[in-house]
Amino acid sequence: MRPLITALIQQRCTASPADNLNSSIAAVEQAAAQGADLIVLQELHGSLYFCQQEQSDAFELAEPIPGPTSDRLADLAKRLEIVLVASLFEKRAAGLYHNTAVVFDRDGSLAGRYRKMHIPDDPGYYEKFYFTPGDNPFLPIETSVGKLGVLICWDQWFPEAARLMALAGAELLIYPTAIGWDPSDDAAERHRQQQAWQLVQRGHAVANGLPVLTANRVGHEADPAGGPGIDFWGGSFIAGCQGELLAEASSDKTEIITASLDLAHSEQIRRIWPFFRDRRIDHYDDLLKRFRD
Amino acid sequence: MRPLITALIQQRCTASPADNLNSSIAAVEQAAAQGADLIVLQELHGSLYFCQQEQSDAFELAEPIPGPTSDRLADLAKRLEIVLVASLFEKRAAGLYHNTAVVFDRDGSLAGRYRKMHIPDDPGYYEKFYFTPGDNPFLPIETSVGKLGVLICWDQWFPEAARLMALAGAELLIYPTAIGWDPSDDAAERHRQQQAWQLVQRGHAVANGLPVLTANRVGHEADPAGGPGIDFWGGSFIAGCQGELLAEASSDKTEIITASLDLAHSEQIRRIWPFFRDRRIDHYDDLLKRFRD
Repeated sequence: MRPLITALIQQRCTASPADNLNSSIAAVEQAAAQGADLIVLQELHGSLYFCQQEQSDAFELAEPIPGPTSDRLADLAKRLEIVLVASLFEKRAAGLYHNTAVVFDRDGSLAGRYRKMHIPDDPGYYEKFYFTPGDNPFLPIETSVGKLGVLICWDQWFPEAARLMALAGAELLIYPTAIGWDPSDDAAERHRQQQAWQLVQRGHAVANGLPVLTANRVGHEADPAGGPGIDFWGGSFIAGCQGELLAEASSDKTEIITASLDLAHSEQIRRIWPFFRDRRIDHYDDLLKRFRD
Repeated sequence: MRPLITALIQQRCTASPADNLNSSIAAVEQAAAQGADLIVLQELHGSLYFCQQEQSDAFELAEPIPGPTSDRLADLAKRLEIVLVASLFEKRAAGLYHNTAVVFDRDGSLAGRYRKMHIPDDPGYYEKFYFTPGDNPFLPIETSVGKLGVLICWDQWFPEAARLMALAGAELLIYPTAIGWDPSDDAAERHRQQQAWQLVQRGHAVANGLPVLTANRVGHEADPAGGPGIDFWGGSFIAGCQGELLAEASSDKTEIITASLDLAHSEQIRRIWPFFRDRRIDHYDDLLKRFRD
């Protein structure tokens, strides 16, 4: 089996959706020119991270899928003959919006979409105002390069989501994301937070014997409401199925990172560490509870 | 609240159970003299890691609980006024044996026991021959220093086990363990394996907002059947509730490592990263399946 060349695009965004889309397209072209078969864009790459405040005007940014932006991305995948994972603010109906990842196959077809299941809401990340939690069943998206376990940002903190994708046959875990530092936190806390974020996802790689690809936003974005804003920490990374880092981006630059993956290697790792054989499903019922009290 | 001083004991074992127990006791005394309130011994600290082969003679090492070894450990906890997590080969009945962790409180009482739920079986680790999988429900053990989420070795690779303990109110995750390298693996593979092992457990700390304490065996143990044996990799560690490393032992020495923990800090971390608020229990049913096929 030919190795799979994967690329992640880490970008800064501006207030102009047209400029952001053009930047994304230019970066995808560059990654494809480097030989990438599978290219992943960061969460909500078409806009500033508008969830720093709750403002109903921002719903104007949402589009149906298929829609104008997804059409352009579909054309791009077809033209470059790549599999493309993109992130859109989806208008499903009037008053019903999702934070959605879409996957286009090499022929430009929409291979599938995933609507973010775990929605954060904390200072600077007011996503519960904008995004209805997904009602899809954590299923991987079948493509010509494999079954992609596409999840989004806040999902990355939940081992349950990664496990459900792996149990459904995902061959890769993919996280478009947008996370950063509160500029008022000190360097030690910033370091702990970014490490925690990377650790938990590399842990999913280990627990599931799967590579993990995480494309994060970079750059400072001001808070329109006058708060401290967010320093998006970049640090996009690709980890192998033992959690080992294969590529990692900086914290402050627009970047494309790539890694070559041998998907067949997962089976070798799962043979030496056969976790799937030994799950105690006879004693896991309480995972379905909010709390065991 | 006073910080909790925790200590892990990483030791080499010999063919003499009496010597091993004396070494364990001496190390516990030393840790207590350093001020430790909670002391954790490694998995099966009373013997060589006999699971390198399947030999029915080894069942002679098993003891009931309470029994002679647990009585000595209970006395030790009482004398030193510490909480002690130890690991025993438990004889529950003729022909029914468990890999069991026991917790003694400061007064010498048996606060609880946990029987290893996930049992490995791979070359050099033939545990399914020896240990009946536990039938306990992943519940923390209540002690005077907090609710201890005690799990054992192979359990550490399963996010489900850590989550169930956290959902039941565990304030710490504790793993007595015995894992090492195949001496025939190269340095890069050894590094990946040890990193994977540490990563997945630090990931449990992050996902659950809890400190993790892992006490591992160290030293080479020959395979009586003439195989390559195991280089137990030590590397015992204590991680905080953001997964940050607070203490880490070497790969080749008998050692005691300590860290001071503020258990109240977990709640602060869970307030900034409220994962427990957002678990999608309405879509987790398939976690109870062997595979989603």
